[in-house]
Amino acid sequence: MTSETEEKALRYRRAQSVSKAEEITEQEKRVRKLQLDKPIHTPRDSLFSWSSEFNNFTGLVNWGFLMLSVGGVRLGLENFLKYGLRVNPFEWFIVLTGYNEGTSSQYPSFILIVFSIVPIVISLLIEKGIAVDFLPEKFGVGLQIFNMFFLVSLPVVVLNFKGNDFSFVGITSVCMLYLIIFLKLWSYTQTNFWCRSGLKKKYLDNKLRRQSLSAPNWKSKEDLINDSPAAAKLTKYPDNLNLKDLFYFMLAPTLCYELNYPRTDRIRKRFVIKRLLELIFGVNLVLALFQQWMIPTIINSVDTFAKMDPIRITERLLKLAVPNHLLWLCFFYLTFHSFLNLMAELLQFADRKFYGDWWNANNISTFWNSWNMPVHMWAVRHVYKPITGLGYTKFFAGIVVFAISALFHEYLVSVPLQMFRIWAFLGMMAQPPLAIISRHAEVRLGPRWGNIMVWSSLILGQPLAIMMYFHDYAMLHFKPVQ
Amino acid sequence: MTSETEEKALRYRRAQSVSKAEEITEQEKRVRKLQLDKPIHTPRDSLFSWSSEFNNFTGLVNWGFLMLSVGGVRLGLENFLKYGLRVNPFEWFIVLTGYNEGTSSQYPSFILIVFSIVPIVISLLIEKGIAVDFLPEKFGVGLQIFNMFFLVSLPVVVLNFKGNDFSFVGITSVCMLYLIIFLKLWSYTQTNFWCRSGLKKKYLDNKLRRQSLSAPNWKSKEDLINDSPAAAKLTKYPDNLNLKDLFYFMLAPTLCYELNYPRTDRIRKRFVIKRLLELIFGVNLVLALFQQWMIPTIINSVDTFAKMDPIRITERLLKLAVPNHLLWLCFFYLTFHSFLNLMAELLQFADRKFYGDWWNANNISTFWNSWNMPVHMWAVRHVYKPITGLGYTKFFAGIVVFAISALFHEYLVSVPLQMFRIWAFLGMMAQPPLAIISRHAEVRLGPRWGNIMVWSSLILGQPLAIMMYFHDYAMLHFKPVQ
Repeated sequence: MTSETEEKALRYRRAQSVSKAEEITEQEKRVRKLQLDKPIHTPRDSLFSWSSEFNNFTGLVNWGFLMLSVGGVRLGLENFLKYGLRVNPFEWFIVLTGYNEGTSSQYPSFILIVFSIVPIVISLLIEKGIAVDFLPEKFGVGLQIFNMFFLVSLPVVVLNFKGNDFSFVGITSVCMLYLIIFLKLWSYTQTNFWCRSGLKKKYLDNKLRRQSLSAPNWKSKEDLINDSPAAAKLTKYPDNLNLKDLFYFMLAPTLCYELNYPRTDRIRKRFVIKRLLELIFGVNLVLALFQQWMIPTIINSVDTFAKMDPIRITERLLKLAVPNHLLWLCFFYLTFHSFLNLMAELLQFADRKFYGDWWNANNISTFWNSWNMPVHMWAVRHVYKPITGLGYTKFFAGIVVFAISALFHEYLVSVPLQMFRIWAFLGMMAQPPLAIISRHAEVRLGPRWGNIMVWSSLILGQPLAIMMYFHDYAMLHFKPVQ
Repeated sequence: MTSETEEKALRYRRAQSVSKAEEITEQEKRVRKLQLDKPIHTPRDSLFSWSSEFNNFTGLVNWGFLMLSVGGVRLGLENFLKYGLRVNPFEWFIVLTGYNEGTSSQYPSFILIVFSIVPIVISLLIEKGIAVDFLPEKFGVGLQIFNMFFLVSLPVVVLNFKGNDFSFVGITSVCMLYLIIFLKLWSYTQTNFWCRSGLKKKYLDNKLRRQSLSAPNWKSKEDLINDSPAAAKLTKYPDNLNLKDLFYFMLAPTLCYELNYPRTDRIRKRFVIKRLLELIFGVNLVLALFQQWMIPTIINSVDTFAKMDPIRITERLLKLAVPNHLLWLCFFYLTFHSFLNLMAELLQFADRKFYGDWWNANNISTFWNSWNMPVHMWAVRHVYKPITGLGYTKFFAGIVVFAISALFHEYLVSVPLQMFRIWAFLGMMAQPPLAIISRHAEVRLGPRWGNIMVWSSLILGQPLAIMMYFHDYAMLHFKPVQ
């Protein structure tokens, strides 16, 4: 007998024995049903036993969100009972404008915001100068770079001389605005440079081809497409170099300059009103949460941080993590959905991809590539691609992007606090190694654990950085009594 | 032209215009790609805009559980910092045994637990008496009912005379045990009654048939099946009336008496050890959580409840809801999975369905039908079906089941607290109306909202009832200083 027939015989015998066993239980069942004691028990496993193979726990999702709500409502009530109502719109006014009876009423933040128009106009003049051959190109680009660095240094210098006149919110807004203008002017300069290089290259190419073909009117495929009606509507270099175009770019919700943006047909009034209401309601909510929840928690933590007791610091950190994270979520929605969509609708700007679905990100790189699309697109177009274009590796280009991003984060924190530490820089530079770890977690443990790592670093990493700065700031300004 | 051809023409024109529009955008895209400014923007919607039709928020589930963990760990740390380590195994010993230097060292709970054997044996003697025609059936059943009510009244009477000798945990255990024995004896009496009626009916039937057929050895189909080898192995009335059978039923993890339970082939040692370890670890965890978390919270609430301030009471209630719910979940797992499976494995009892998947229940009836299967099966077999069998409606039978269940809950709470209130009874009687409301929620708003209602009533309803009793208990024993 071959092994195959043996196997067949074995399978047949097994099938028979199974059906026999089933027959017995069937008969037993019938016999049991006829018993007079109305039996109801049958052999079966508990659901939590592995052998039951039961795995439907969908109800636990609702349980989780309900427990979260119960905890949230209780926290709110406890806060209210402990601190009373701390929300005070008049205080917002003082914080936002920096108006205070004690200081000279000069509003330096406002002056700096208006002054930002000057470097913008200078940038346009330099580009115009290059375009009409008034300035040599290399010298012009050098001037542009000088102009941009003058721009970002201005708040630092002004703060050094007139620091006491600034409110914290005022100087933070100025730094943010100046940084955005810096990134926009970088894009403006580089894009105009690409246009000039492209035109030169095309001119030389066509000249060479016409000479070699001895056809004075020879046109490339690209030239033919560019003569189409669709192309005729597009603005071409150097027609773009005017104030209207530059100010549209400055207001548009993007950091990447283009000569022809995709536009929408009309402004939807209902859409504008919805975004506006979201902004008004949301900003008030954020300020109220900040006054009622964040500030008392931070003030309560000063002593703890002076004493450096690790258990108490962990408790404070976790306590701060919840309101901080909720405020960050509100801030994200208000900035990236409400505000940028409002600006885009008013300017009929059609590209609304201001954020990807970072909440589903399975590793930290995906998160950084999708939570802030304007900066991501800028970094890819103006840093990453130019560097890889020069022949460097993608890994190196990625590290450069993170380093530049880290510098900007440090700038946004250190300048307003007037305190140069490197916590923000280190926090950003910890992201590439974390990205590698989270990528491993995703591959080894499954996408769910990658996503959990992303959320953890978001919920815990931010308050950790805030606490670092707060500790140093408290040590500097309110020294503990010895 | 018929309307059909018109429609066709319209559809054709529409299709053409669509393809034309697509053609234009295709050409525009190609033209844009060839521009020198490396454009990257394309018209697209933000993900949160309705028009984007994006709805993948799976990452938020991980977010929810992470926020819950952060809150949990912080609460634990805060509790530890506030109260220090309260876990004290020696105190458990005092609470569990009722041992205390001040009281007479008599252990009345222990004596009552051992005494429970007496009514069990009496019940067997009565059944035996009926079976051998020593007692008339009606008188015997009357004796059984008297015996059962004597059983449940015993703790109440003893407590009335020797109340100070009992620990709270001790008297609760006694009440629980006596109630379980009550339910088991009910099932024992009723099942034996069914067997007797069934035998009588069969005997009369067969006699009639044999007379009419004039075939003295005539056997019904049922009789033939009962002569099969499968039936021969089964115990039949009145062979079941012995001590071994009754004590097996008393120890078995079921409230429903049967003459022949489904049995397993062997005792799995690994399974027993796992359940035993779960029990040892779990009971210690529950006691630790109780000492560390529940007791300080309850003690802190006395003053609040005396003052009857609704906001503060809500805050206390929500604060109590979290540990209470977690303790209940631990208790559920330890009782219904670890303990009952351990007993079943040791007794080779094969039916392990001690609970259904109540965590997915979409309405409150489903929850009550699946969280406690031994009681559910008992209620269906011994209350619901007999009542519907008498011709009453299902609705009426359901209400009776809930009323009996409510009485038992009240018994388990009022007797140990020595304080007759009706909060537990009212809480249980609120379940049928709640079931109707949750059923509406399930149908109108979808199953997810039904499930949320089930969890809410579980998380908030329990601490509400506890608080009611606690308020009355505190008012009675520690009167607030006026």
